Amino acid sequence: MGNNTAGEVITCKAAVAWGPGQALVMEEILVDPPQKMEVRIKVLFTSICHTDLSAWKGENESQRAYPRIFGHEASGIVESVGEGVTDLKEGDHVVPIFNGECGECEYCRCERTNMCRDYGVNPMKKAMVADGGCRFRTKETGEPIFHFLNTSTFSEFTVVESACVVKVDPGFPLEKMAMLSCGVSTGVGAAWNTADVKAGSTVAIFGLGSVGLAVAAGARARGASKIIGVDINPAKFVKAQELGITDCINPKGLEGEIKRLTGGGGVDYSFECTGNSAVLREAFLSTHLGWGLTVLLGVHPGPKMLPLHPMELFNGQQITGSVFGGFKGKTHIPSFAEDCMRGAVNLEEFISHELPFEKINEAFQLLQGGESLRCLMHL
Amino acid sequence: MGNNTAGEVITCKAAVAWGPGQALVMEEILVDPPQKMEVRIKVLFTSICHTDLSAWKGENESQRAYPRIFGHEASGIVESVGEGVTDLKEGDHVVPIFNGECGECEYCRCERTNMCRDYGVNPMKKAMVADGGCRFRTKETGEPIFHFLNTSTFSEFTVVESACVVKVDPGFPLEKMAMLSCGVSTGVGAAWNTADVKAGSTVAIFGLGSVGLAVAAGARARGASKIIGVDINPAKFVKAQELGITDCINPKGLEGEIKRLTGGGGVDYSFECTGNSAVLREAFLSTHLGWGLTVLLGVHPGPKMLPLHPMELFNGQQITGSVFGGFKGKTHIPSFAEDCMRGAVNLEEFISHELPFEKINEAFQLLQGGESLRCLMHL
Repeated sequence: MGNNTAGEVITCKAAVAWGPGQALVMEEILVDPPQKMEVRIKVLFTSICHTDLSAWKGENESQRAYPRIFGHEASGIVESVGEGVTDLKEGDHVVPIFNGECGECEYCRCERTNMCRDYGVNPMKKAMVADGGCRFRTKETGEPIFHFLNTSTFSEFTVVESACVVKVDPGFPLEKMAMLSCGVSTGVGAAWNTADVKAGSTVAIFGLGSVGLAVAAGARARGASKIIGVDINPAKFVKAQELGITDCINPKGLEGEIKRLTGGGGVDYSFECTGNSAVLREAFLSTHLGWGLTVLLGVHPGPKMLPLHPMELFNGQQITGSVFGGFKGKTHIPSFAEDCMRGAVNLEEFISHELPFEKINEAFQLLQGGESLRCLMHL
Repeated sequence: MGNNTAGEVITCKAAVAWGPGQALVMEEILVDPPQKMEVRIKVLFTSICHTDLSAWKGENESQRAYPRIFGHEASGIVESVGEGVTDLKEGDHVVPIFNGECGECEYCRCERTNMCRDYGVNPMKKAMVADGGCRFRTKETGEPIFHFLNTSTFSEFTVVESACVVKVDPGFPLEKMAMLSCGVSTGVGAAWNTADVKAGSTVAIFGLGSVGLAVAAGARARGASKIIGVDINPAKFVKAQELGITDCINPKGLEGEIKRLTGGGGVDYSFECTGNSAVLREAFLSTHLGWGLTVLLGVHPGPKMLPLHPMELFNGQQITGSVFGGFKGKTHIPSFAEDCMRGAVNLEEFISHELPFEKINEAFQLLQGGESLRCLMHL
């Protein structure tokens, strides 16, 4: 890529959200050059995750801000870097990550967490840390366009803080790398890092979207003996079985089925990937007394508190949340990408549809209707 | 001890509970010989824990059963053993444990839990596993007297399943060993096994009774740099500071004090030893984002669910329950006793009062009034 745009304002196409639930508008925008510790990326592939869907609908009023560019699963090539960025340069193949890693804060220096003080997941954040400003503007009026989840990938070019950009091997296919931005890393990492699933153990996954199926892929790679998938939509069972789910359950009318499938004891690990409070309780109760671990992955936007009684924590069953699969992005994702390319996880299986970027509203419908796992858009 | 009582019914004194909150009646009872896999113990020392207090008051109606012999912290000498008991014999110095270890069930064979299928904590259990019967009877009418928490130590002689009897070195003073039956093991073990407190870390303890102070002793032995004690009763602060608490806080009017004491971040570990739901939430919020761990020790008898929102589990703070400090009784308590005798934990510090067994109702009042840590009764 001949870089004659460094330092310039770039005019390009982006899918701009102007209000909750309104169709995204494919329009020309202005993308400012990256400032200190920022990176401008030419996005080549992007996909949609439920977090985009929920933000697009404006489900959480306090997080509403328009105009805004959503999108956080993507891959692309560095167009230029701002002052102080030393680990990335023009032409690098990269994956933006919504859960950044500055490498220097108290969290980044601690092995027990993948949080980052300034660049962690923050749905309220809508501008850059450096100057509190936006790097996107509308072409017509120059009005700022807000950022989303540190990444804003529904644009041909985006500006991301360098803490949120992971360099991957240029020999790896970028279309697959986009899967590492969120869904697959979140699911596989929950099985590998958060739960540390052991060979021969039993697993139940509640919700068979991309994240749930990524958990299955991770559990399969670890040699779990039984991977039970639970979903109210039986149409998801076909793909689920391709991805290593050994038993599919429709929870309606099948109470106690997980206990029966595990000889009465329950599973060693359960994963809650739905964001539904009743399902969370079900997931907790499906685990074995004494050592069962429930990993929370679903986003619970409602006001409902944890549907567990304090005394239930005395049975040795644990519950924990997992963000970005416990991966520290810059430290772990490059080697996770290698693991995937060596066959530990088949990233291609998660790309159920492909569409040109222009058809992004169609891609939203596919996800909302439960038809797609990931619809990969080509920019 | 000349054992001329093996196989015989023993007549001895016991403190019998006849109704919720009613003064215990010191009366003569009959104690049957131990049956298969049971042990009859001559109790020499016993003390009272809040679980006895709560059961005596009959706070949980479904657990009421009278007449009953409470008590689960004690030490004594084996009088005789039933058929099949091979690891214990007449004259052994022993500590009864409410959370047994059969050594053979799926839980006992699993390293990750100290539960036991048949001999774990079960406040509903009021008779022996072998035949569903009681080994205590009233002298006057022969009416069965119910057992409590696998142990029933408020009696000169008790019959306990061998899974719930731990042999200790006969060179160790039995009056101190009684502390290992429950409170001290629960607190120290919560710090050592459940939380695995690291040297240099920070700790907050909510509730400065025996269990809370045992947590402090455990954290101190591990080299915690700051051990913050929280209690609404400032009278407890004197003893607390003797036991290694570095900072004492009265939570009334001191909101945010733990964060201030830890440079804004919060503690690495918090321990909830009160059984109060609001305190539980306070304990959770006092921990550091990213890696804070809250260990639940208090018994929460009310219907209140966990006062945490599912999304709060995504900040890297964890919560877990701890029973009997995570110790597997028969496996770990003998070496824990050695640790204590070598000075890791000073058991004597927990004995604040001593009384003859006959004054047990006085001992109940001392605990209820918050005056005693442990009142050791001599039988």
